[in-house]
Amino acid sequence: MTQSSFARSWVTSANGHSDFTLQNLPLGVFSHKGSAPRSGVAIGEHIFDLEAALAAGLFEGEAKAAVEASLGGTLNAFFALGRSARVALRQRLQELLSEGSTLRGKIEAQGARLLPLACECEMHLPAKIGDYTDFYVGIEHAKNVGKLFRPDNPLLPNYKYVPIGYHGRASTIRPSGVEVRRPKGQTLPAGQTEPSFGPCARLDYELELGIWVGQGNDMGSAIPVSEAGEHIAGFCLLNDWSARDIQAWEYQPLGPFLSKSFITSISPWVVTAEALEPFRRAQPARPEGDPQPLAYLLDAHDQASGALDIELEVLLLTESMRERNLPAHRLGLSNSLNMYWTAAQLVAHHSVNGCQLQAGDLFGSGTLSGPQRSQLGSLLEITEGGKHPIELPGGEIRRFLEDGDEIILRARCAREGFASIGFGECRGKVVAAR
Amino acid sequence: MTQSSFARSWVTSANGHSDFTLQNLPLGVFSHKGSAPRSGVAIGEHIFDLEAALAAGLFEGEAKAAVEASLGGTLNAFFALGRSARVALRQRLQELLSEGSTLRGKIEAQGARLLPLACECEMHLPAKIGDYTDFYVGIEHAKNVGKLFRPDNPLLPNYKYVPIGYHGRASTIRPSGVEVRRPKGQTLPAGQTEPSFGPCARLDYELELGIWVGQGNDMGSAIPVSEAGEHIAGFCLLNDWSARDIQAWEYQPLGPFLSKSFITSISPWVVTAEALEPFRRAQPARPEGDPQPLAYLLDAHDQASGALDIELEVLLLTESMRERNLPAHRLGLSNSLNMYWTAAQLVAHHSVNGCQLQAGDLFGSGTLSGPQRSQLGSLLEITEGGKHPIELPGGEIRRFLEDGDEIILRARCAREGFASIGFGECRGKVVAAR
Repeated sequence: MTQSSFARSWVTSANGHSDFTLQNLPLGVFSHKGSAPRSGVAIGEHIFDLEAALAAGLFEGEAKAAVEASLGGTLNAFFALGRSARVALRQRLQELLSEGSTLRGKIEAQGARLLPLACECEMHLPAKIGDYTDFYVGIEHAKNVGKLFRPDNPLLPNYKYVPIGYHGRASTIRPSGVEVRRPKGQTLPAGQTEPSFGPCARLDYELELGIWVGQGNDMGSAIPVSEAGEHIAGFCLLNDWSARDIQAWEYQPLGPFLSKSFITSISPWVVTAEALEPFRRAQPARPEGDPQPLAYLLDAHDQASGALDIELEVLLLTESMRERNLPAHRLGLSNSLNMYWTAAQLVAHHSVNGCQLQAGDLFGSGTLSGPQRSQLGSLLEITEGGKHPIELPGGEIRRFLEDGDEIILRARCAREGFASIGFGECRGKVVAAR
Repeated sequence: MTQSSFARSWVTSANGHSDFTLQNLPLGVFSHKGSAPRSGVAIGEHIFDLEAALAAGLFEGEAKAAVEASLGGTLNAFFALGRSARVALRQRLQELLSEGSTLRGKIEAQGARLLPLACECEMHLPAKIGDYTDFYVGIEHAKNVGKLFRPDNPLLPNYKYVPIGYHGRASTIRPSGVEVRRPKGQTLPAGQTEPSFGPCARLDYELELGIWVGQGNDMGSAIPVSEAGEHIAGFCLLNDWSARDIQAWEYQPLGPFLSKSFITSISPWVVTAEALEPFRRAQPARPEGDPQPLAYLLDAHDQASGALDIELEVLLLTESMRERNLPAHRLGLSNSLNMYWTAAQLVAHHSVNGCQLQAGDLFGSGTLSGPQRSQLGSLLEITEGGKHPIELPGGEIRRFLEDGDEIILRARCAREGFASIGFGECRGKVVAAR
C-alpha cells in the first residue's frame, strides 16, 4: 500500500488534485461519440477503454477474466466476481498506468484507448440495478426530520436497533446529468382537509452515499456481518430527490412512494472498496446511553475499520447564478462518518431474513447530514420545512428548489500520507413539470 | 365473443370445470424434463409448447411476431408488444385448439407440443420482474388492520384519495411451489423495551391479486387513466407472506421492509386481460360520504367496466392434515371487487409523477378481504392479531402459521352465459428457520 500510495501516472491529469488518481481507478460504463455502451476506468481527465485494452492483449489471468466480465455495457457480472477479481484488475491497471510503465508507448500509440472524459464521452448507469434499497442511517438527518414532527422525541424507539430502510424504485435511477422533471401529485394544502393535484411545490434533494452490491446470496441464506464487506463492490454519490409535499400526504402507513420514485440520480463512477481502503475508520463510538447493536450486526473487525471517512458536498447553481457567471453555492459539507451503521451492517441486516441480494443491487445510505448547520444534507433541514428561507449569493432566496436549479454532489477522501481520491460529480437540473 | 364463449377444445381436459379452458389460454414459462425455460400456454391438463409450435410453422403475421417475442424464457418482450399482439395470439390459439380445428391432426402427430402439465413440467416466473409494487387497495383489509391500532378511526385520512402503495422486493418473488423459509429478524416482545432476535413467531399470508404491466412509459410521462388499461398485460395470484412481529417493530417510519422481503409467491400463469374481459364490472358505487376520485384517476369507461369479478380463495393444509389425508381447509373466500381502486387507476397513479413503468413490472393489489368473517385474506384479520385462535378440522389450532403449513391460493371467474376460467394455484409451504 505504502509503495503505491503516492505513485504518479503518466496520464498527467491524474496527478495532483484530480478525483481520478492512480490510487482511485473507478469503473464505469460509457459510450464514445455514440458508440454502444462499454466499460472503462477513469484516470485524470480521461477514460481508459477496457474493451479496447483487452483486444490489444493488455490483460491476462484473473485481470483478463475481470475485464471479460465487464463487457456488454454493464458491470453486473464483474461485480459478481467479488474482491479477488477487483484486486487483480486494479493491480494490472496500476502497472499499465503508472509513471514508469513499460507499456506506456504501446498504449499511447493507440490513442483510442484513452478518451477525453468531458468532451467526447457520455456516461451510463454502471450496472443493471435489480433492486434499489434506500436506508435512513444518517442519524443527524433522522433527528432533524424527527424534530419537525416530534420536537421532544425525534428518534423512534427502533432507530438505534434497526438499520431502517425501505425499498426504492429501480427503474428511475439515472446517471448524473439527466434532467429532473418536477413531479406532479396529490398534496394536502395547509389548513385543508381535501387534497389538491398539481406540480410539487416543495422539491428537495438528499445528499447520500450509494453502495453497490457485489457478490449476492441465495434466497434463505443470510450474509454474516463478518463476511458482509466482501459483498460490497463499491460506492457512488446518490441524490434521493424528494417531493416533500407529496411525501407528507402519501407516506402513512406504508412509507414514501411517488414522492421519491420520479428520479434518483447517481454519480456514474464506481469507486471500489479497494480504493477506499486507506479511508476506513473505526466506527465512531456510540453516544453514552445508546444500546449495543444486536449480535447479528456486531463484528470486531467491522467495528474497528468499517466506517468510511468521505467528505460529502452539495452545491446549488440557479438559472440566475448561471446567467451571472456566479459559482455554485455550497449548501452543505458533511461526511459519511455520520452513518449510524456501517455498510457491512446494512448488508447483514438486509439479508438476515433470507432476502436475496444480487450483484448490481444498489443501496442509498440515507441523507448524511452532520450535526452542524453547515453540514445539512437537504433543504427540508436547512429551511426547517420551508419556515426559514436561505439567501443565495446574488440575493435570491430558496425554501425549496425552483425550476432551473441544479444540484451538484461531490465527494473526496483525503488522509495524511495517501493520495486523495474523488467520486466525480452527481448533477441534476430541475425542469418544469409537464 | 358470444360465438366462442362456450367453444370447446379437442384437448378434452380443457372442457368442463378446468381452470384452463379454451377461453382462458394463460401464458407462462416452463421447462420440460429439465429443458431450458420456454414459453407455453396452459390448456386443460397440458401445456401447449409455443416454441415447438412456432418451429412447426403454426403461426404467421402478428401472432407469429407475438410468439417470437415470447422466446428466450421470459415474456417481457411479449408483454411490451401490448394488446394487439395478445389478441392476435389468442385468436390463433383458439383456432388451433378448438374442437373443429383442421390442424388438430398435425399438432397431435407431434405430441411433444402438448406436454402434461402436472407430471413433467416445472413452472418458472413468467417474466423478469424489474420493479415490484405492493398496493394496499383492499379496503376491508385496510379497515381491519387499522382497527387493530385505531378502533374508532381505522382508515387514515389519505386512504380514500390515494391508492396507497409501496415498493416491494423484486429479487425474492418466486413461482408457486417454492418453499417459504421462516425468516429471522428483530422483534419487540410484548412488555419489553429492547428487541430480541430470532425466528418470526407471527408468520402470515396475504391473499392478493397480481397485475402484470404490459407496455411501459418513458420517465417523465404519465399514463392517463383512460389509457391505463392498455398497459396491463394480465393477472396472477400473489401471496404477500408477512412476518407480523418483524413488521410491527421495523415499519415506522418508512414502511414494511424485511417483514415482507423474504419471499413473495405468485401463480405462474398470466391470465390475460382479454380472458378476463367477460368478468369486468362497473366499479362498485362508493359508499355515501366517500369522496370522488381526483380527476387524474377518473375515467367514465374505467368506472363503467374497470372492476374485476374474480372469486379468490385461500386454503390451509397442515402437516398433520396431510398425514391424515384431510383436505385443505378454506380460510377465506373473497373477491377482487373488494378493490377500492381499479387496476387502471393503479397504473395511472403509479405513473402520475413520471415514474417509469416497464413491461414485466408486477403490482400486488393488497390483501383482498371481504366485509364478512368468512372473507378475510390474512390470519392477522381472522385471529385479530393472534387474540382469537381458529380451530382446524382435526382439532389443531392456529394463531399464525406453523412450520409445515401450506397455503394454497386459488381464483376463478364465472358468469352466466360464459365459460369459466381459473388462475391455477399459488402454493407455498413453510419450512423451519435456518
